[in-house]
Amino acid sequence: MTASSRLITESDVDELALGAAVLGTGGGGDPHVGSLIAKRLIRLHGPVRMIGLDALDDDDFVVPIGGIGAPSVDIERIMSEGEFAHALAAIERGAGQTPTAVMPIEVGGGNSMIPLAAAAICRLPLVDADAMGRAFPEAQMVTFHLAGYGPGTTVLVDHHGNEVISRPRDGAWSERLARAVTVEMGGAATMIDYAYSGAIVKECAIPGTLTKAAEIGRILLGRGSASLRDDERIAALCDELGAVRLFDGKVSELQRKFEGGFTKGSAELEGIGSYRGSGFRLDFQNEMLLARRDGLLAAVTPDLIAVLDISTGHPITTESLRYGARVTVIGMPCNEKWRTPCGIENAGPAHFGYDVMWTPVEEIAAARRSVA
Amino acid sequence: MTASSRLITESDVDELALGAAVLGTGGGGDPHVGSLIAKRLIRLHGPVRMIGLDALDDDDFVVPIGGIGAPSVDIERIMSEGEFAHALAAIERGAGQTPTAVMPIEVGGGNSMIPLAAAAICRLPLVDADAMGRAFPEAQMVTFHLAGYGPGTTVLVDHHGNEVISRPRDGAWSERLARAVTVEMGGAATMIDYAYSGAIVKECAIPGTLTKAAEIGRILLGRGSASLRDDERIAALCDELGAVRLFDGKVSELQRKFEGGFTKGSAELEGIGSYRGSGFRLDFQNEMLLARRDGLLAAVTPDLIAVLDISTGHPITTESLRYGARVTVIGMPCNEKWRTPCGIENAGPAHFGYDVMWTPVEEIAAARRSVA
Repeated sequence: MTASSRLITESDVDELALGAAVLGTGGGGDPHVGSLIAKRLIRLHGPVRMIGLDALDDDDFVVPIGGIGAPSVDIERIMSEGEFAHALAAIERGAGQTPTAVMPIEVGGGNSMIPLAAAAICRLPLVDADAMGRAFPEAQMVTFHLAGYGPGTTVLVDHHGNEVISRPRDGAWSERLARAVTVEMGGAATMIDYAYSGAIVKECAIPGTLTKAAEIGRILLGRGSASLRDDERIAALCDELGAVRLFDGKVSELQRKFEGGFTKGSAELEGIGSYRGSGFRLDFQNEMLLARRDGLLAAVTPDLIAVLDISTGHPITTESLRYGARVTVIGMPCNEKWRTPCGIENAGPAHFGYDVMWTPVEEIAAARRSVA
Repeated sequence: MTASSRLITESDVDELALGAAVLGTGGGGDPHVGSLIAKRLIRLHGPVRMIGLDALDDDDFVVPIGGIGAPSVDIERIMSEGEFAHALAAIERGAGQTPTAVMPIEVGGGNSMIPLAAAAICRLPLVDADAMGRAFPEAQMVTFHLAGYGPGTTVLVDHHGNEVISRPRDGAWSERLARAVTVEMGGAATMIDYAYSGAIVKECAIPGTLTKAAEIGRILLGRGSASLRDDERIAALCDELGAVRLFDGKVSELQRKFEGGFTKGSAELEGIGSYRGSGFRLDFQNEMLLARRDGLLAAVTPDLIAVLDISTGHPITTESLRYGARVTVIGMPCNEKWRTPCGIENAGPAHFGYDVMWTPVEEIAAARRSVA
């Protein structure tokens, strides 16, 4: 068997960024700014080779790189390209190993673009995998953590040129220290954590998430085999993702604040079309985490909740959500690694203080259909 | 000329800690806990060799080590000896150089004891110098900073086993990042910063401050040539230090809070003895920074303000100050490095938001005498 590998060129970037933003469930960094930077760097340094987990050697040193902070800050602070090379140099010094590949820590909009940009600058392959299968707000919410691996040597760099290398005692400490430093750095920074050998990455990472993002992006951009009408795209997307359409509505209330290094808030939707007369509420902390229809659970973390523009199907981040926007909310099953007791404990509703029991999004939908 | 060197034994520790706490001006860490640890480690590992700046080689690697945080937290959290060796190992990894000597970053009570303890554990010489000639609340308030040197590779470790190595862009960033991390670590941590070559330390550090502390301690403990009566000690101390007796009073009001990683507050004193009928106010941020008598400036940072027990002359920290305590306040000229425009800008009243002009403490006293 030949190990999988393909080239990512400038023209692949938009679909990748768009699809990753759907999996980013409202967070994971703004895809637009990230895609501009990634395209510029690919133009400058040439295409990036994307490799599957099967192409990793056990002694590779795989470096997950991404942004940490609140989306509200991130879109104000255009990412500085210099940070990526700086972060890679710092992990090499801090860990005493030379990176041989980069990967996204989460397959979010901006956070799928940062490793692509870093791969272009440093001429390293990009691993087609991530450690969440979506985006999550906290640094320890990764499959490495679920498998019992600590954050290892952790790097934070900012656009001022500051560099912080830490060896936190565990994932929870890593999140605490990184969040405090990030707030001080102005609310957003470039981070490397859970940098591990190829063997451990093959054991822990969720494979193929960038390829999946690209496929989603192609549907939303009307590329690919069948050219879809606008109103067919969301249905095609749900088919592709095994997703459930949860609600169509108009944003009637929106509360959003920057607190403790996160963008936190909630949105209320008034039903439109076949959802008229019904209400919907979304709670978020960087990512969409909890969705309730007329007070009843519709979907909750770790399952994915994505808010899409009702006409184009394009994803809307928690930061770019606006009063009056007409949206479709879809729910998707998370990767099975999160559906274990350990996964639910680490990224389920109780962790975020939500007083609901995690129930698989597809089961909630099936129950609703059987009642209706 | 022979380079200066002497051994510090267990029996030297108390006088050193006590005298350093006078120069610590209320901050610099609690001397009592520190001295217990230093004595234990000297008993365990043998005496520590204290060397003068003249004994440093240009290519020595001198590591200032101390505690950072709020005194309120520091006395609750008994220092963990393991932190010192951990911090030295971290600076060796982070800077890629092996420490050849340690020194106090500030000659404060606890912060003169930590380098002594670290020297004992790691069997390194202790440099008889510091980078403040007193204690200051912020990390960039050091003579290295005044001479234009950045913080370099900076280490923070805590008793949980967390380790943070940073390369802040400058001294102000070092303080910001270190303070944020320290707060997250629980409010107190062990820190290494401004680790430099022997050549730079000889250029920047204030020489002989530990010897000076020991001399102060001997006076306060009634050791040395003349055995002094209790009521003669403060006068002898003022002679030794070139200090001015500013006030005798009883603490009649005390406000103190833990804020932003500092112990901040103020104290009001009612005059006693020849100061009866007069009022005095002290403002502090870890250290005593501003002293006013009946609303008029008596002394202000960077000059030293020390609060002493009126009968024993022993120093009282901003944390251990209590309502009803009978105290003497003395003022001392700071080292001349702080009396430059750059020194006043970095550690003078305006930096702390006090609306007074820095005036040398001895000039204020002389003016008061000529009026009286």
